[in-house]
Amino acid sequence: MTDFTMSRTLDRPYDATVADVRDRLAEQGFGVLTEIDVRQTMKAKLDLDVAPQVILGACRPQLAHQAMTAVPSIAAMLPCNVVVRELPDGRTVVEMLDPDAMLSMVDDATLREVAADARVRLTAALAALTGDD
Amino acid sequence: MTDFTMSRTLDRPYDATVADVRDRLAEQGFGVLTEIDVRQTMKAKLDLDVAPQVILGACRPQLAHQAMTAVPSIAAMLPCNVVVRELPDGRTVVEMLDPDAMLSMVDDATLREVAADARVRLTAALAALTGDD
Repeated sequence: MTDFTMSRTLDRPYDATVADVRDRLAEQGFGVLTEIDVRQTMKAKLDLDVAPQVILGACRPQLAHQAMTAVPSIAAMLPCNVVVRELPDGRTVVEMLDPDAMLSMVDDATLREVAADARVRLTAALAALTGDD
Repeated sequence: MTDFTMSRTLDRPYDATVADVRDRLAEQGFGVLTEIDVRQTMKAKLDLDVAPQVILGACRPQLAHQAMTAVPSIAAMLPCNVVVRELPDGRTVVEMLDPDAMLSMVDDATLREVAADARVRLTAALAALTGDD
């Protein structure tokens, strides 16, 4: 974990966690628009065996629209990636880009509001995963 | 354009530009792993009419693997988004996240090498679009 992401490490299997993450994102109004199975991609493209990992592109359309209207370039940072990966010890990491990281690149009043809203929702989704909401 | 992206504005129609961008990325070893049609998504989810825009998730698997091996959290910033959008005057903007933007969030020697390699390739792809390569 670094300070440009928000993450949790769960004592739960990978597949069940991926399903949970989708449900918790949906509860917060985020749809999953894209999905990259990193393990499959690395096997197919490089014949490498890596741990199970998926990159989900999560989007709350209202927030994305507000952000892109205010700062069109922000599209290059959307959707918000939510990564789920299996650790060697069998636990699972859920890690997402901190919406505040966008603000380190461009400062705009609307973007600050959007990032704050997204951050509350994504933090709630993470908390719900571990049951401490 | 802001300083976290690299972009060009082309005097060429949107659809032809999207096809060109794919070709130029492929020439530089980048595959397109994800694609979000922003106009379709905004219409479907919010019943809003916005300008034609697509967010392509471009990935050079070798670079992605090096980056994620060095800094697993960087997956939250992958793949590299390449955005194509139509302007009101009929021109088309191609804008991508500057790989150096990753380095503003996390500093790592391998990541610096990967970002430099990616930046050379993506800059070449942009230049090829405008014929000034």
